[in-house]
Amino acid sequence: MVDSNRRLVLASRPHGAPTPDNFRLETALRPQPAEGQVLLQTIWLSLDPYMRGRMSDGPSYAAPVQIGDVMTAEVVARVIASRAPGLAEGDLVLARTGWQEWAVAEAKQVRKLPDTGASASTALGVLGMPGMTAWAGLHNIGQPKPGETVAVAAASGPVGSMVGQIAKLRGARAVGIAGGPDKCAYVRDTLGFDDCIDHRDPAMAEQLKAACPSGIDVYYENVGGAVWSAVFPLLNTFARVPVCGLVANYNMTELPPGPDRSVGLMRAVLTKRLRIQGFIVWDYAAQEQDFLHEAGAWLRDGKIKHREDVTDGLEHAPEAFIGMLTGANFGKTLVRVSPE
Amino acid sequence: MVDSNRRLVLASRPHGAPTPDNFRLETALRPQPAEGQVLLQTIWLSLDPYMRGRMSDGPSYAAPVQIGDVMTAEVVARVIASRAPGLAEGDLVLARTGWQEWAVAEAKQVRKLPDTGASASTALGVLGMPGMTAWAGLHNIGQPKPGETVAVAAASGPVGSMVGQIAKLRGARAVGIAGGPDKCAYVRDTLGFDDCIDHRDPAMAEQLKAACPSGIDVYYENVGGAVWSAVFPLLNTFARVPVCGLVANYNMTELPPGPDRSVGLMRAVLTKRLRIQGFIVWDYAAQEQDFLHEAGAWLRDGKIKHREDVTDGLEHAPEAFIGMLTGANFGKTLVRVSPE
Repeated sequence: MVDSNRRLVLASRPHGAPTPDNFRLETALRPQPAEGQVLLQTIWLSLDPYMRGRMSDGPSYAAPVQIGDVMTAEVVARVIASRAPGLAEGDLVLARTGWQEWAVAEAKQVRKLPDTGASASTALGVLGMPGMTAWAGLHNIGQPKPGETVAVAAASGPVGSMVGQIAKLRGARAVGIAGGPDKCAYVRDTLGFDDCIDHRDPAMAEQLKAACPSGIDVYYENVGGAVWSAVFPLLNTFARVPVCGLVANYNMTELPPGPDRSVGLMRAVLTKRLRIQGFIVWDYAAQEQDFLHEAGAWLRDGKIKHREDVTDGLEHAPEAFIGMLTGANFGKTLVRVSPE
Repeated sequence: MVDSNRRLVLASRPHGAPTPDNFRLETALRPQPAEGQVLLQTIWLSLDPYMRGRMSDGPSYAAPVQIGDVMTAEVVARVIASRAPGLAEGDLVLARTGWQEWAVAEAKQVRKLPDTGASASTALGVLGMPGMTAWAGLHNIGQPKPGETVAVAAASGPVGSMVGQIAKLRGARAVGIAGGPDKCAYVRDTLGFDDCIDHRDPAMAEQLKAACPSGIDVYYENVGGAVWSAVFPLLNTFARVPVCGLVANYNMTELPPGPDRSVGLMRAVLTKRLRIQGFIVWDYAAQEQDFLHEAGAWLRDGKIKHREDVTDGLEHAPEAFIGMLTGANFGKTLVRVSPE
């Protein structure tokens, strides 16, 4: 079926960790653009932890995906046909058209790739939403100062790797937490963090303490769970905790057993004058040009490194996504849906 | 013994709520000032919730009072003898000389009362540490905007009453929580809050929800406990929670039973992008003149009201303090140690 469109829809809501049968691969007719629209062919599909939240219908900052709807995602796509001024056949664009091979979009809902000089896929990673999430959380909340210690988990991932590298560029120490010796070696040796702790090691908390002899001034929170428990006693007075994700908690179906640690948390907020603040990247959308200017230059100058974990074929997106939530990826998770 | 000095020392550390036998009234010789020192007679002794923390030896932002030492406090005192330039007999000063009738102090550790035109005791209340605690927490963290809703507990107390009145002066709605109908009536009718909820009412949470139809944008946290539990689900996206006290938790000897609500707390921080930040007033010491300028004018112009709860005689300080921790006071808790 030459005019077909394969797409992945939400078949059912996960109870706990997502499974392959929460997704359904459908084949539909390829849509046709109306006036003011473009027809897009997906090249790069970005898989990100926030999508786990969209699979559930609990309260969140964004509406959930409805059962039967195409899974949400940002993609890099090529304009195949345009009925909109300013967008031409062959243009590469960013669009939020989700887990599918083809889509039509309103022209105002897509935008041309920023001219960063870097490869197209970076617009979904180091120079895209994950990179800006790292940058904005540090710029607005974490505010690392020279000599301070910045800790971040998922340190080989697209957000964590940028957090530590930006911390270093700001003159701070960077301590990563990652899963397994290969990722830890990459974080230390390639990314240049001062240290990296393996969260699979039973002695993780002790090792983190040893790696942070002056405590932790900024903990960039993107995972929650056991890492947060290890970080919490190490937070210094006036520590800042930007919170942009809690991957370890996303699959929880109920609150864990007691005691009620929220009391200890609030006590530490008071006695250590902690600043704990949640954010999502688009709260700081007005700063995007500042981010692209600074991070684009870092990338061109070789001051930051990044790594991509590419899966070929839309049909493999569910397993890549499920793996990412358990840390099976190594770098920014992308699905190559069609050749660039 | 005409040259005696009565003082209250910490006799033992409380386990849970303080009791009278945690304090001991001693009579000692009145001290004599050395070169560079002044002899002070205490007039007004300020009793404040933070002192509960100083009675314990757990980690905090300040060192605990040692067993046998005079209980800590800020006081308004009169200079009776001076061996220091710049301070003369009869001067009224602020000093941190604690729960005692007489003390010597280094000249550099006291300061003359600010010239606000208001009565001396206000330097310990509405124009002192409690007033500035309210002002600084709103100025730096809470940042109420016109039309937003600001909630605060202990609303008839020296901090809470200022929080709501400042919120009103900034164009926000103010909703108080206080203990009992008399305090609630005072908060509404005299202080001018938009509403006040009685935390002793079993339907407190429902009443608070009804009083905050647009949710809560700023919750000024000074009590913790059941009020926090009632406030938490009402917090709006981007709500700010300055945390300057957790009176309801001070007497806890262990964490309460589960579930572990810290997970739900962090989830709300993320999904609602909350800012939860602890502070103590002296973090903002550099802003004191700004505070005195603004709040002094408000007081002179009748734009803010305040209330004092005065106990006569140093020997009654322990019962006044113990009562304050349970809300038995009505207004700023002061002990008149000697006539003004």
